[in-house]
Amino acid sequence: MSEPQAGHNSREQLKAIVSRIEAVELEIKGLSDDRGDIYKEASSNGFDVPALKAIVRARREDPAKRAAREAMIDLYRGQMGIE
Amino acid sequence: MSEPQAGHNSREQLKAIVSRIEAVELEIKGLSDDRGDIYKEASSNGFDVPALKAIVRARREDPAKRAAREAMIDLYRGQMGIE
Repeated sequence: MSEPQAGHNSREQLKAIVSRIEAVELEIKGLSDDRGDIYKEASSNGFDVPALKAIVRARREDPAKRAAREAMIDLYRGQMGIE
Repeated sequence: MSEPQAGHNSREQLKAIVSRIEAVELEIKGLSDDRGDIYKEASSNGFDVPALKAIVRARREDPAKRAAREAMIDLYRGQMGIE
């Protein structure tokens, strides 16, 4: 029995790695499409999509960091005279 | 039987939409972590991760577009004297 050549072995490994990554990325693509469908459905039920996205982002963020960020924006708004 | 108030109904709908989006995003996060693990494993098997990522990107791209893009980069490299 002969061992496969190093070059051949490495090419097969490379192909296997790329296949696994592409399979995971295909699943991610499917889920991203699902998320898009949820937003589309929400929109057709009268919800505002940018506001929904802002809520999802806000819930991901650490509450203390969010409060600090919003306080800073309020301060700058005040100084720039934005109501 | 009384219909639920519009405001209440809409709040429940909003919570359901946000939950569904967060569930999908959790799955996406899990898969992104899986992809990271595949790259880590490949790296510990001696593969170069930036080169792997370049291959995955190249395979996603339309072959004609990729050829056109690469030809343009070659042209500009030549004009800028980059070997």
